[in-house]
Amino acid sequence: MRFFSDNAASVHPAVLEALAAANHVDTAYDGDALSKSLDAAFSELFETPVTALWIASGTAANALALASLCPPHGSILCHRDAHIQNDECGAPEFYTHGAKLLLGEGEGAKLNPVTAAAALDAVANDVHRVQPHAISITNATEYGCVYTPDEVGALGALARARGFGFHMDGARFANAVAHLGCSPADVTWRAGVDILSFGFVKNGGMSAEALIFFKPELVGATHQRRKRAGHLLSKGRYLATQILALLEGDRWLANAHLANAKAQVLAIAAGTRLLHPVHANELFLRMTPDEGAKLRAQGFDFYDWAEREVRFVVSWDQDDRDIAKFAAAIAAL
Amino acid sequence: MRFFSDNAASVHPAVLEALAAANHVDTAYDGDALSKSLDAAFSELFETPVTALWIASGTAANALALASLCPPHGSILCHRDAHIQNDECGAPEFYTHGAKLLLGEGEGAKLNPVTAAAALDAVANDVHRVQPHAISITNATEYGCVYTPDEVGALGALARARGFGFHMDGARFANAVAHLGCSPADVTWRAGVDILSFGFVKNGGMSAEALIFFKPELVGATHQRRKRAGHLLSKGRYLATQILALLEGDRWLANAHLANAKAQVLAIAAGTRLLHPVHANELFLRMTPDEGAKLRAQGFDFYDWAEREVRFVVSWDQDDRDIAKFAAAIAAL
Amino acid sequence: MRFFSDNAASVHPAVLEALAAANHVDTAYDGDALSKSLDAAFSELFETPVTALWIASGTAANALALASLCPPHGSILCHRDAHIQNDECGAPEFYTHGAKLLLGEGEGAKLNPVTAAAALDAVANDVHRVQPHAISITNATEYGCVYTPDEVGALGALARARGFGFHMDGARFANAVAHLGCSPADVTWRAGVDILSFGFVKNGGMSAEALIFFKPELVGATHQRRKRAGHLLSKGRYLATQILALLEGDRWLANAHLANAKAQVLAIAAGTRLLHPVHANELFLRMTPDEGAKLRAQGFDFYDWAEREVRFVVSWDQDDRDIAKFAAAIAAL
Amino acid sequence: MRFFSDNAASVHPAVLEALAAANHVDTAYDGDALSKSLDAAFSELFETPVTALWIASGTAANALALASLCPPHGSILCHRDAHIQNDECGAPEFYTHGAKLLLGEGEGAKLNPVTAAAALDAVANDVHRVQPHAISITNATEYGCVYTPDEVGALGALARARGFGFHMDGARFANAVAHLGCSPADVTWRAGVDILSFGFVKNGGMSAEALIFFKPELVGATHQRRKRAGHLLSKGRYLATQILALLEGDRWLANAHLANAKAQVLAIAAGTRLLHPVHANELFLRMTPDEGAKLRAQGFDFYDWAEREVRFVVSWDQDDRDIAKFAAAIAAL
Repeated sequence: MRFFSDNAASVHPAVLEALAAANHVDTAYDGDALSKSLDAAFSELFETPVTALWIASGTAANALALASLCPPHGSILCHRDAHIQNDECGAPEFYTHGAKLLLGEGEGAKLNPVTAAAALDAVANDVHRVQPHAISITNATEYGCVYTPDEVGALGALARARGFGFHMDGARFANAVAHLGCSPADVTWRAGVDILSFGFVKNGGMSAEALIFFKPELVGATHQRRKRAGHLLSKGRYLATQILALLEGDRWLANAHLANAKAQVLAIAAGTRLLHPVHANELFLRMTPDEGAKLRAQGFDFYDWAEREVRFVVSWDQDDRDIAKFAAAIAAL
Repeated sequence: MRFFSDNAASVHPAVLEALAAANHVDTAYDGDALSKSLDAAFSELFETPVTALWIASGTAANALALASLCPPHGSILCHRDAHIQNDECGAPEFYTHGAKLLLGEGEGAKLNPVTAAAALDAVANDVHRVQPHAISITNATEYGCVYTPDEVGALGALARARGFGFHMDGARFANAVAHLGCSPADVTWRAGVDILSFGFVKNGGMSAEALIFFKPELVGATHQRRKRAGHLLSKGRYLATQILALLEGDRWLANAHLANAKAQVLAIAAGTRLLHPVHANELFLRMTPDEGAKLRAQGFDFYDWAEREVRFVVSWDQDDRDIAKFAAAIAAL
Repeated sequence: MRFFSDNAASVHPAVLEALAAANHVDTAYDGDALSKSLDAAFSELFETPVTALWIASGTAANALALASLCPPHGSILCHRDAHIQNDECGAPEFYTHGAKLLLGEGEGAKLNPVTAAAALDAVANDVHRVQPHAISITNATEYGCVYTPDEVGALGALARARGFGFHMDGARFANAVAHLGCSPADVTWRAGVDILSFGFVKNGGMSAEALIFFKPELVGATHQRRKRAGHLLSKGRYLATQILALLEGDRWLANAHLANAKAQVLAIAAGTRLLHPVHANELFLRMTPDEGAKLRAQGFDFYDWAEREVRFVVSWDQDDRDIAKFAAAIAAL
Repeated sequence: MRFFSDNAASVHPAVLEALAAANHVDTAYDGDALSKSLDAAFSELFETPVTALWIASGTAANALALASLCPPHGSILCHRDAHIQNDECGAPEFYTHGAKLLLGEGEGAKLNPVTAAAALDAVANDVHRVQPHAISITNATEYGCVYTPDEVGALGALARARGFGFHMDGARFANAVAHLGCSPADVTWRAGVDILSFGFVKNGGMSAEALIFFKPELVGATHQRRKRAGHLLSKGRYLATQILALLEGDRWLANAHLANAKAQVLAIAAGTRLLHPVHANELFLRMTPDEGAKLRAQGFDFYDWAEREVRFVVSWDQDDRDIAKFAAAIAAL
């Protein structure tokens, strides 16, 4: 029973059906009818006109977003535990041609206006220092915490006040929205977000994320960058259809509710072991190596995250009986 | 009836079945059993130990190959009509961090040792000039012509003599092998090719190409480059399974034989209009705008390629009755 | 007697005097009084407000100019014999983060509107092709020919019509102006040039070129790019003072007149051997290896440029007696 | 009286004399006799065969060194107060094509094996994380502290144990050696340093630093990188001669002794205000805004470094009477 990562989860049956349904001749790249319908589909979801591009990975989506917000000689403020800093092998640096990530602090991998301003203000404004141009946050965060619309809005106001772009890495955006119960608009553009990497792969998709531009002018050279990164796949309709299948009937949200709910079962079992509030589908627990070994001996797989700290990630498609067994095993430690 | 591009073709049913069959939990990225089986599958096909990586696009596969063969301050010799020069929005320059493409001549978009040496020898060997480090050819070429093993071998010998790497863009490698009737090994590593971008998408696949390293040491930092380009997709098993499905029972070759055969039907109809020999699944014809309009009026779609020149691309899945109608329409011009 | 390159020439005595005169404490980088006076000095020379930066090399000046005119996914049209294409080890590609050079034709290394349009029009306007964003010409050219204001203006009009930037590599701009007898303004901004690399090193300077922006908005991130390239030297006053010394009393123009005049002496001697008109201080001659050997045996050093082709470059400081001897030796062949 | 920066200092008279003495025709770029003599001169100084290149700025020297030690997908460990992190506008990221700087801790801007290992060990060894490839330290540090040979050696041993390259930013290397009284070899290659940026500009030079490779194989593509960065100046002899003039009779060391001694005068006056030991020519003092204003009112200029913290930098050429006045003024606060 795998609690390593929601990347290991299966693909939602509706996605497979959509792939089969799309299996006929159509225009190549993103000129097909399905790809062309993404703007409208996301504009409806976000209650505002947006430009939406399919991208085969969250790393590429993030890096393209950052490249549209920050020049090579600039920096992007993010939390020191951000995925873009730690888990993308330098994709932001590659796509931006060498911009820096400026690291900020905050509980649960969340920046806040105080920590953000502290990091930004430490950079003297001259030609010798790499100047910040953007802020990037992850929602839900790398520690499974969720920024509320107000929290996002406070950072959005800071970004706006300084003339910065504002990006949200939403690899688990669905889990965040499911937790918040708000409109997707409330926690994005209404709170100042300019570009959202909207993750589908961890949430029932196969190989398609959506990159959402709330300000069309920020698309800029993203089409060229996507192409020259080899991310303008030649049969784009098979990416678009995955996304559309998950948008249909709000499957994306239903899946996220499932994953979050299953995570809550484990959270209750984990009790005081929890290192962060469990808002989404990730749990971080205090655990000795011996305790970890006991769980593994019972067939539960997961990552050691730090010394005496483990991470569990729950997927939308995990069997509730497995969840129950795991909860029992955790409680019994 | 679309003769624009084999990128528009549908996906082979076996690929869809394979996707469904792979739809269960497995390790993320390329740690799953399917991804791990690619090396063995291609080693068998190529009769030599190879390292094989899935890549979601041919552009990314080419660019990764070139980045492993050429430093930022080097150049890669290719034909002036090469896809890497004209159709990838600078992906080679992006992935290599600014290497140049050195352009050579040759009929049918084919380099040969004479034209290759002419281009290479024009570069004085000093620190002021960007020095060539690699040769890249496309087989089948951008004009639908196929390099024979001997022709590849002559360029391979040149590359070896100069200490260069040698890459083959095989977006339509299957069509080339189908035409040649040789072993895949004969026209690649036995002829000196170091790295092959082996295309599956135009030939029945959905979103997976294979990057084949005949010299394991050339893999070098390709894993890191793939990751930082956002091309280490998190559910890699869905790419691996596409490739494996097309390798199974040599479907890749059967599909290519189909496409080539259908192209031959059109070639016969085209007769003296043909601008290049039709080895694979592409045809380039002399055609006046009036003639083109007549064909289009009958429902046949295709690209104008140059002045009084059109391109037809035939896909493996096109209906033989459409092919017959198109042949008749061409012959009737 | 060296006719290799004007890079080998000595430094004008006034430049050395200026260095000594500047040898006192002042603000670092480009905050000193001398650096700050460059804008005014060049604005007067060019009869329009300009922004002027010192740069330690022509290669860096060119590359910074191109980086301000062309994004990583764009291309710059230049002549196929341009210095930026052949003699800078890929500096344009490095500074632009991978832009391409689009190569055009023309006698004497000069582009013209017909050859420029031919090269530009061959690039289809879609996301797959690297799109041109700028034109760069060299005046005097790499074959020692000079563009007239009208010729520059015709290319400037083309650039403007297409929304491109327009750069002039003026490594031997002084020689061009000396030949033309026009105002520096006539052959630059009045003819549509946006940015000029104004060379001083080949013309009496030691280590300072000037980068002139005729449109202040194009300076953009040039200050940041100069810094991050390590070209914001910490004691910039020693660069500024070199330039100011050569501007004073139009020494830059006097030196260029000297070099051009000496070149004319050789040009007369060369007669029908000349492969290009001699407008500036470079000569290209037909010459057999035997003839070349004869000259070298008499102590004259120069480059073989191509098969049966040699290049002589004359410097402002060469002794007229050496010139006379060389002329005689050439005539006597 | 300026205590801003040793970048503002004048040039040693011997350097100006050397420039004048070099003012004759010679081969361009680095083919001249002076440039060619650098290897021997530095090999003698360092008691081992080295390769030495002139570079016009310390930023470029550092960036070229790092580019030879770290690939685009790697990282370089440095102190969080390092010049390469804070004062080069991203030059390391530009020259390395996007490598990251991994930041470590330590008093006085000095890394040590414990803090270095802590930073390095926090990076999991997988393809998702940017892997460290090199360590870079500054000696004397950005806080005017000097690493001893033993301290350097401990980090050198760590670098060697992990297979990393080891770079020393020696913008004030002369001041460090003057403080230590050791052989330059002891604190560089004998302690494991692979490449040294040896600063001359702050210490009597005009526009030439030396990049010293203690392992010739690490030069690699540095010549190409220097050229494509526009740092292969065409009249290199005027850079080489500056360095040779400062090496002659150990002027570099005498100048550093002067600067350090003058700094000691101020250090004694500063007493308990000092925030770091004064090993070289920089002082960091606790100081209220009022106190700073008093000093400035007496004609002393310097930087506010942080809240209630100021920096003084002493140059080799400052008048001892000014130093005495400043010392008195500080003591009188």
